[in-house]
Amino acid sequence: MELFVFKSPVRFTHTDPAGFVFFPRFFEKFQAAVEDWFTHGLGVNYAKLVIDHNIGFPTANTECTFKKPCRLGELLELTILLRKLGNTSMTVEFVGHVGGEERLRAKSVLVAIDLDNGRPCSLSDSLREKLKAYENITTSIE
Amino acid sequence: MELFVFKSPVRFTHTDPAGFVFFPRFFEKFQAAVEDWFTHGLGVNYAKLVIDHNIGFPTANTECTFKKPCRLGELLELTILLRKLGNTSMTVEFVGHVGGEERLRAKSVLVAIDLDNGRPCSLSDSLREKLKAYENITTSIE
Amino acid sequence: MELFVFKSPVRFTHTDPAGFVFFPRFFEKFQAAVEDWFTHGLGVNYAKLVIDHNIGFPTANTECTFKKPCRLGELLELTILLRKLGNTSMTVEFVGHVGGEERLRAKSVLVAIDLDNGRPCSLSDSLREKLKAYENITTSIE
Amino acid sequence: MELFVFKSPVRFTHTDPAGFVFFPRFFEKFQAAVEDWFTHGLGVNYAKLVIDHNIGFPTANTECTFKKPCRLGELLELTILLRKLGNTSMTVEFVGHVGGEERLRAKSVLVAIDLDNGRPCSLSDSLREKLKAYENITTSIE
Repeated sequence: MELFVFKSPVRFTHTDPAGFVFFPRFFEKFQAAVEDWFTHGLGVNYAKLVIDHNIGFPTANTECTFKKPCRLGELLELTILLRKLGNTSMTVEFVGHVGGEERLRAKSVLVAIDLDNGRPCSLSDSLREKLKAYENITTSIE
Repeated sequence: MELFVFKSPVRFTHTDPAGFVFFPRFFEKFQAAVEDWFTHGLGVNYAKLVIDHNIGFPTANTECTFKKPCRLGELLELTILLRKLGNTSMTVEFVGHVGGEERLRAKSVLVAIDLDNGRPCSLSDSLREKLKAYENITTSIE
Repeated sequence: MELFVFKSPVRFTHTDPAGFVFFPRFFEKFQAAVEDWFTHGLGVNYAKLVIDHNIGFPTANTECTFKKPCRLGELLELTILLRKLGNTSMTVEFVGHVGGEERLRAKSVLVAIDLDNGRPCSLSDSLREKLKAYENITTSIE
Repeated sequence: MELFVFKSPVRFTHTDPAGFVFFPRFFEKFQAAVEDWFTHGLGVNYAKLVIDHNIGFPTANTECTFKKPCRLGELLELTILLRKLGNTSMTVEFVGHVGGEERLRAKSVLVAIDLDNGRPCSLSDSLREKLKAYENITTSIE
């Protein structure tokens, strides 16, 4: 398993009258990063989890510090670090770089939810195993 | 000056396949709440600040805890509490209720930026005075 | 029954680096306008239709001409005109003004869909009756 | 020059409570498709046009027919067809497929605008030449 970096071009859609990314768009990018991390990084199809297994991963808490703004045409690279793995939740850190320069850093708690009843549910063994492996490779990264 | 509560209906636009508000939409609502708070609560036209005075208030840091989800058709009421007033920045807390029940709580640091050069700039005396008055009425609210 | 006009402030959220409303945001406003028109204009709770009756009104076709851009701080007023009322669909026209000046005009075909099977379904008699009454008051408006 | 196809995964961000793409999101995808078509298809950096040359390409008119909905996890492929090339504008058609099946078809008129004064401006010779070449390869495609 390899470190997962989600690459996201900054588009017109994301930018505000000041020419910078409007900050809620970053949270949309975090969500997209998680989806691709599951599907392409962990090998667990995110859409299938939602549609076939009726499991969602809503964000229970999130915190983000924006160090420098991002502009139209830049390529944002979001590195995903798994910081904590609980029974029904995980803490994911997103580190955003443009051209090697850190622009933002965020941390989110994602909770596995049974979409049928809205209650937290345990991560499946196979998903947990993969997350555990991913945690191992990111634990030494600051 | 009165406590400012921004009322925002939960629309189809805001909700995800689970039927709940997709969390980045809340950050859009916080931005909308700040705009209306400035314009209608403080009596300082937000659009004029941006367009005529070239001053922006980007979010440098934000943190949000989602306690309970919000659904299509609900009316979210966001109360704005001013927690800290600096020279070039302010800390704003957003408390979100639906029908009297607390659903979320967020805190954002907004920095006044001169849009011509992207640098932080001091709040004007007239704006500071109004913010000071607002801070006084929210300081005792938990 | 009265002509329904949806009022929507142009916010930072809606505007692009050129300082104008980014055009997909108008389609979000059309959706919001339809929701409020149902709920407040026709007296048919839109959220209940979706959640309790499992009926959706996706847009099957839409066409929009943007005559003049809209800017941050302006108040867009969307007038809803009902142009055609079919068995399972309706054609709605949206005329957008700012300060009495026409800025855009759009026409959408909305189809009633049974969300359980994704198939078009007949409008209920009570909804049709209200739509019929609304059509009568907008038929003479250009 | 080759036919440009923009590939866009359907994400949680794009889908509504019915589990389908919320239609205004398609217009965001059209905008993204145009940006990538310019930058990667035509070899004309879109962001530089906006930032360095102060030229924008707002949508003056758009029309879209949604034939079948798109769901979370699907990969939407948008083929760009150049239908008309004027002095200051162009007509672009977007044909959306999922797994070879046509899901939607849209047509937009994009106008080149000098962002300094908001007026239409002529396409540069080098851009026009590339658009002309692109038009030649799409003219026979239905």
